Formats: sequence, structure tokens, C-alpha cells
Amino acid sequence: MKIAIAQLNYTIGDFEGNKEKIIRCIRQAKGDGAKVVMFSEQAISGRPAYDLLNDIVFLERCNETLSEIAKESTEITTIIGLPLQIDNDIISAAAIIHNGKISRYVGKQNVISRDERYHLSRSHGYEFLRVEGRNIAVVLGSDIYSEHDFGSDVDVIVSLKSTRYSCGIIERRYDFYSKIAYKTHSNVIAVNQLGGQTDIVYDGSSFVFNRRGEAIVLMRSFEEDYTVFEVDGDYPPIKIPVQDKARNVYRAIKLGLKDYFAKNGFKKACLGLSGGIDSAVVCALASEVLGPENIHVLMMPSQYSSDHSVGDAVKLAETLGIKYDIVPITGIFDSTTKALAEVFKGTESDVTEENIQARTRGMLIMALSNKFGYITLNTSNKSECAVGYETMYGDTVGAFSILGDLYKTEVYELARYINRKGEIIPQNTIIKEPSAELCPDHKDSDSLPLYDELDAILYRLIEENQTIDEITTAGFDIGTVLKVFKMLISNEYKRYQFCPVLRLSTCTLGKDRILPLTYDSSCLL
Amino acid sequence: MKIAIAQLNYTIGDFEGNKEKIIRCIRQAKGDGAKVVMFSEQAISGRPAYDLLNDIVFLERCNETLSEIAKESTEITTIIGLPLQIDNDIISAAAIIHNGKISRYVGKQNVISRDERYHLSRSHGYEFLRVEGRNIAVVLGSDIYSEHDFGSDVDVIVSLKSTRYSCGIIERRYDFYSKIAYKTHSNVIAVNQLGGQTDIVYDGSSFVFNRRGEAIVLMRSFEEDYTVFEVDGDYPPIKIPVQDKARNVYRAIKLGLKDYFAKNGFKKACLGLSGGIDSAVVCALASEVLGPENIHVLMMPSQYSSDHSVGDAVKLAETLGIKYDIVPITGIFDSTTKALAEVFKGTESDVTEENIQARTRGMLIMALSNKFGYITLNTSNKSECAVGYETMYGDTVGAFSILGDLYKTEVYELARYINRKGEIIPQNTIIKEPSAELCPDHKDSDSLPLYDELDAILYRLIEENQTIDEITTAGFDIGTVLKVFKMLISNEYKRYQFCPVLRLSTCTLGKDRILPLTYDSSCLL
Repeated sequence: MKIAIAQLNYTIGDFEGNKEKIIRCIRQAKGDGAKVVMFSEQAISGRPAYDLLNDIVFLERCNETLSEIAKESTEITTIIGLPLQIDNDIISAAAIIHNGKISRYVGKQNVISRDERYHLSRSHGYEFLRVEGRNIAVVLGSDIYSEHDFGSDVDVIVSLKSTRYSCGIIERRYDFYSKIAYKTHSNVIAVNQLGGQTDIVYDGSSFVFNRRGEAIVLMRSFEEDYTVFEVDGDYPPIKIPVQDKARNVYRAIKLGLKDYFAKNGFKKACLGLSGGIDSAVVCALASEVLGPENIHVLMMPSQYSSDHSVGDAVKLAETLGIKYDIVPITGIFDSTTKALAEVFKGTESDVTEENIQARTRGMLIMALSNKFGYITLNTSNKSECAVGYETMYGDTVGAFSILGDLYKTEVYELARYINRKGEIIPQNTIIKEPSAELCPDHKDSDSLPLYDELDAILYRLIEENQTIDEITTAGFDIGTVLKVFKMLISNEYKRYQFCPVLRLSTCTLGKDRILPLTYDSSCLL
Repeated sequence: MKIAIAQLNYTIGDFEGNKEKIIRCIRQAKGDGAKVVMFSEQAISGRPAYDLLNDIVFLERCNETLSEIAKESTEITTIIGLPLQIDNDIISAAAIIHNGKISRYVGKQNVISRDERYHLSRSHGYEFLRVEGRNIAVVLGSDIYSEHDFGSDVDVIVSLKSTRYSCGIIERRYDFYSKIAYKTHSNVIAVNQLGGQTDIVYDGSSFVFNRRGEAIVLMRSFEEDYTVFEVDGDYPPIKIPVQDKARNVYRAIKLGLKDYFAKNGFKKACLGLSGGIDSAVVCALASEVLGPENIHVLMMPSQYSSDHSVGDAVKLAETLGIKYDIVPITGIFDSTTKALAEVFKGTESDVTEENIQARTRGMLIMALSNKFGYITLNTSNKSECAVGYETMYGDTVGAFSILGDLYKTEVYELARYINRKGEIIPQNTIIKEPSAELCPDHKDSDSLPLYDELDAILYRLIEENQTIDEITTAGFDIGTVLKVFKMLISNEYKRYQFCPVLRLSTCTLGKDRILPLTYDSSCLL
């Protein structure tokens, strides 16, 4: 018996487009002699649909689309995910279509993720299906993690997924499924969603493991894919390739950025290029994904900008072949401080004047965006967002952040990956000491620990949810840990107003970690 | 048997402060001869704690605090809410304390609200307790809505709540509980949380209904309160007062604003005063809550500002006795357009230049905030947020929005309420036609339907979740409805980056209604 696996890139609410892709694969599968064709969880609607799942029109469109898909599913069994209303509950379901008719639904039991817990109700969990004398267990989403015994006579476990990319997920997923296949002595197929949905990237990476727990099909990561395989066929085992973290991050960002633009109908982007590492990496990625002809950058030097800043930025722009303009901010800064002179009489220059520079740049880049219809790309990184080393409405502006879930040290890794075949990002941008250049001889290390140490502490606090005791026991200086911890918890208000951040880590600030804005944080010390 | 009801204002994570308040009431109740004293849902921790509910240190502090409270609960039964970890689950529980010992917990079954669905697991629901020969049903939160039959021998239903204020909730709550009391023929007591928690205001309004469904105790709204009553005592029924919407909104905002400042340790506020209705209302409320000596406003006229704008703003500032400065933005605007002249060569003046004005004002007010340590109050209203009639990083700046959940027409109602005893907000601000004054002879009605019509359509789309068909059937013009609908759904990205909005309606944008930023919205038409 042949089974076809369709790993497709859906657009939320684009029922016509999704349907066409799905039907094309059903026809292909029939042509390939497959008896079963399977699609991911919530394939028909796209995910995450948030409160569209409360919208009766949206749910009706799901059902109508399913009916049209069913008509095409003659002479094949189609297994496909969608959100489904049953009485007053909405569940994540797999429709089983036999001979052109919807024969039944399998519902997801374990509703785990934050975007689903509010909308979806718990259903019954996995069920068996018999096709061509084979027992097929159909499992949705995270139900696979709680079921380790499907009985002795299961031939195939079919797992419909929509799991976002996060650091290390691909390796962990292969590992878990290999064990499930070995333990249950059955063929295990997982089909995952693919594509960017604003802040989420579904990485695809669908696969088949045989009854010995060996990989026999590994589908593409970060690309659509389709394959057919023969159940219990004689396939040589595939050695699972070692995952290169920087390469996966690079591919995830490219897919996320491409789909954010494509699915929203956007074409052109703008950003401010400072000469520093963050904006250089954003610029190089945007130029590659959207094309250099669609990128317009501004260099906005102040009296505190060093010569190399504009030089490095211009060098990058010329290497990429993108449009750039140099707009000094000194005149605007001077008229701003002049306008405020009376109000500020008797005060000293302080962070206020630094923020005026950052906000002037924000205003200029937004003006460029408004005038030409560009989408502004944000250039903040996770280390800055975590400790609030940024100016609200200044360097935080933008429609979309592609580095906001990468620590500064990870941004450097990505820069080196981008330069793997030759210098794109100027070497000087990579090797010079990081500086926001908002006052004379400014260095990031004036206010922050060195990034190696800062990022290590932040990773333990955020990704590993370690207590302060645990971190100091691991050898970090208590004073530094406390300082970082306090910066982290006291800057939740800045993150509250931050733009959507492409999620790449296992714990994205503001999405996977949400704290109150008003509380007594001393209770955590 | 006497029962004491303590309606208190808790701070999330302030275990010491919350404990002291609680213990003070337990002592008071014992002194008053009460056999039972009851506190609201999640009293010990405060709510909503979001991901603090995943923090082992936070949960341990809850338990420690409960133990200390238990020691004080001798010779009285204390019923008090807290989040509780049981194995791998966290539930919302009521601890029952008898004779200084925690005798058991009652858990909440129906976890409904968005802030809880992710963190809290379903527990067993209401349980009975016997005190002084009386049967007491202890019910948490929304479990009361699914239980209409507590058996024939229930004497008292004790409902521990933490329900936020929203338009109409107080009336609906009285009405529902009155019916429960009548139907179950039992005394019904509800104790609600009180106080502002960033965007939420718990209104208190705790009460007792007798077995005939008559109100016999109505505790204060928007204030802490404590009372003792005799079960089945001979109390005259109280006529439930008609709720005045503008007065409730006014009191909710005052409490929310006061607690946002007090619980965060903030003292002083700044805002931009345009001469228009929104900033005038924010200013009048802030002056009343924080004291005129703690308010500093900027008037920031441009070449398009009419004479009456600054005049009306100055008049308000002088009436209130607050500090104000007039900082014209023309110089900054001119240097900005000059800086961009080369980049913008060959283009016409458009919305870009309007946004530069709004962003310059945002930059100036944030500079004032930075220089003097003021908290910036946002002045947007719900109508603007809904249709995106605002400039990101311009008039959207601020730490906190107190009008962002009130439609423009409701802002006018509130202004008239503020003026109920005499003119505070200048009459001209109330009667003149609304204008953003960003280009010559600018009127809001150039871009938007009149606010009466706009707000009526938005209310049906947002609060009533009506379809376009339903709204046009009710008599609204199809072209206008479609225009408003498209503006509403295409501006989700602006709301994504908006500041916390004090929630006053039954459907706050961005909190009760969250849509994807990337989807095919034509599916809803």
C-alpha cells in the first residue's frame, strides 16, 4: 500500500488557494497509485487563526472547503486537518475521507499551545482506521506525546502536525519519533505544516520511520515537499544529518520573511543602517529574500557617529546593490533641543537626549516607509529586548522583527554564516566593539555585561527558566546575575509595545513568557 | 451564624502586603463574632499573574503565605482563594481553613478566561462544607454559571470571584445571582476582587442575596469594603440601584489609574494636550486622581493648529491648576522635511508629513517623560484604535491608555459627566467638530463616517460580533459598513504595538479580540 505525504504552505483564510494546492496533491497521489494521502493539522484553514476560530463565517468556509475537497477524494483515502465546530466546542480534527465522502473525524485530545488553549476544546484523541487490511492510527498534534502504546496490531501511525520551528526542534522530533516507531514496532509518518505565518515558521521536515525506528523518508525542511512511499517497502535506512544551527536559523528567517511579505502582498522594505551588526544582518537577509531592488536604507549619522559607521553601512549597501541615502540627524536634533530649551532649563544632558536621537531616526525611517509604501524592518535583537537596551518608538520601530528572538551572540553567528562564501557583511562590522553611539565614546559594555556573559545568563533565565540560585551555583557572579534579572523583569513594558518577532527560540519573549506589567517582583528574589 | 466578607485590593506578588490585609480582616471578623470569613478568588497572589503561575518561587510563596494566614484562623473558618500546584497541574483553589489548619481545597472546574486557559487546569468544582450545622457550597469563579442545582439542603452558596469590570457587568451579576438564590432557595454570597491590575479593574460589588432572591447586602463598587451578616437574619430587602454607565466608567478609570500608579510606585504623569476632547478628558481624570501638582502637559501647535486649540488647552490647564508648556513643532517639522528633501525629491506632500507632525509630538512628550521621570499617558480612544485613525509612534505613544476602550461618543459622555457640577473641560472642546489638525481645514469626518454612525457600526462588529449582513439588515449603509469593517480588520498591526488599554467594555481590542496579522481577510466577506 502506497501512502502520499503532502507538506504544503497554507495561508490562513485563503480557502481557495489552500484548496487548490490540496486538490492538486490528491490528484497527484491518485496518479501515483497511493491509497492514502495525508495533509497536516489545520491544513484547510491555516494556523494560528486566533479569534477567527470564533467566527462563524470562517468556520463555515472550513466546512465548505472540506466538502469540495471530499468530492475529489474518490478512489483514495484522504486524511486532512481542520478546525471543526461540534455543538458549542471547537476542536482540531482530522477529517477521514473515503470514496468522496467524509466518513468521520478524529479529534485532538491534548490542547497544549498558548494560541489554542483559549479556543480549542479537548476531544477524544487518536482513532484507528483500516485501509487495505492495514491498521492505521490517526493522531493529531501533541497527542503523540502522551500515547506510547497503540496496541500490538498497529501497522502505521499517522501523525498530523503543525509544530513551529524552534532551536533544536528538528533533532528532537526525529529522535522522539524514531523511538515511537521502534517501541510500537510500526511505521510512523509525520506530516507537518510548512511556511511563515507572521511570527511563526512551520519548518516542514516531515518524515517516515520504519518498524525498526530507522528513518526511511526525510522530507525537506523550510520548503514545500511531496512524496509517496510503500508501507513496509524495502527502503534503505537514511542516516539523519547533523543539524547546523546557523543554517537552520538562516533558512527559517528567510522563509518567515518571504512569507510575511508574500502573504501580506508586500514588496518593498526599508530600514535604518547604522554600521552595526544587527542592521547589517537584517539588511543582508532582506536583500537576499526580497531582492536588492526592493530595499531602501537610510544612514542617519549624528555628531556621535564614528566615521566607520557610515563607511561600513555604505560598504554593505554597495556590496548588496541596494538603494541608500545618508540623512544626518544633527539639524533635527538641534531644533528639538532648541524647542525644549525653555522646558528643560536647568537640567543636564542625560538619556533624554540619547533617546531623542533614536526617536528622530525612528521618525525618519517611518517617513520613508510612509512616503514610498515600504515595510519597515525592525533591527533589534533578543539581548536588547530582554534588558530594555533600546529606545521605545526609536530603534524599536518596525512592522516586523526578524532578529528579536536571537541573542546578540547568535546574531554574530548568523553574520558569519551569511559571509560563509565571501564577505557580504563588512568584516569591520563583525569585529568592532558594539556601540549604540548615542553619546561620546559610547560602548554597549558601559551599560551591560559583555554579550557572552549577558547572553549566557539570559539563556538560563529565559530558555531554561533557572532560578537565581541555580545560575550563581553554575559559577556566574551574583551581582551580575541580579542586575541582569532586574533588567529583564523591569522591561516587560517595553516588550509589550514591541512589533511581532519571528520566533526562533524555544522561549520567545512576549509570546512564550508573559509577565504582568504591575506586580511586586521582589517576590521572585 | 455570622459570616464576614472581605473585599480587598491585592497587589500581584506582594505576599506580605496581601497577607497583612487578610490577617487584619480575619482578626476583625473574629472580633465581630463571625464563624466564617471569606476572601475572593486568588486573593493571596493577586490576579492575573500570567506566567508567574509557572514560577516555582511564586507558587511556593503562595503556599507559605497561606500557612501563615492559617495560623491566624483559629476559632473561625477562613475561605480564601489562591493558585495551587497539584502534581503537574495548577488550579484555582479555595483553601478551607478550620482551627488554624488547612483542612482541604475546593478547585475551580470551568477555566474560561483567556489569561487562565493556558495556565490553569480543570479541577473538580464546588464542594460542601459544614459549619455550625449549616451546609455551605463553596464555588469558584465561573463554576457558578454551570451549576444551577446544589441539592435541596444547601443553606449558603459562597461564590469566590475575580471578575473584571466591564460595561453592564454589575447589573448582570446582580440579576444572575438573584435568580440563583431564588431557584436554589439559599443564601448566596459573592465576594469579588477589588482594584486595578494594569489593564483590568476588579469592581468589587460583592453582595448577599437571601433565599427569596432579594438583595440584603450590597457592598461598595470600586472601593475596598468589609461587612458581617447573620445567615437567615431578618434584613430588609435592598432595592438594587440603577447603574449609571458614565459614573461607573468614571469610577473604574479613576481606580484603574490610581492603582496603576500606586502599585508601580509612579507619582507624576505627562501628556500632550491638543485642545481636543480625548486629551482633555485624560488630563482632567489624571489631575483628579494624581493631583494637579503631579501633572505636566505640553501643547504642541503646528502651522495647522487653530487658535482655539491652544486656547482651549490652556484654559483647561489653568482650570485644573496643572503645569503646562507650549512647544511649537514647526521648527522641528521644518528641519525634518529639510533633512528628507533630497530623498523625497519629486514627491507630493501626503500623509507622510501629517505623520511627521504626530511623531514629532510623540518624541517631545517622551522627552519630557524621560527628562523628569513622568509616566506618559496615552490619549487615544477606541474608535481611533479600531479604524487605525492614528499615527504609530505618534499619538499612540504612552505607557498606559485610559480611553482606549471607550468609543469617541463614550468619551463625550464621560466629558459631560466630568463637567456635571460645573465646567472643567472647556465647553468649546466638547462642542467643536473633532479634528486631528494635521493638514489645512482638517476634519475627522473627511476620512471617517460621523462618530455616531461609526461607533454604532463598530459596536455591532466588535461587542456584538455581528456579521456584515446583520448590520446592513439593521439599516446601515452597506458601503459604510464595508468601509468600517475593512478599516477594522486592516489595522490589527497598529493595535499589536499599542500600549496597555484599561479594559472597560465587554470586548477590548487586542485582548478579547485577537486576529492574525497575516491572513486572507476576504474569507470573511
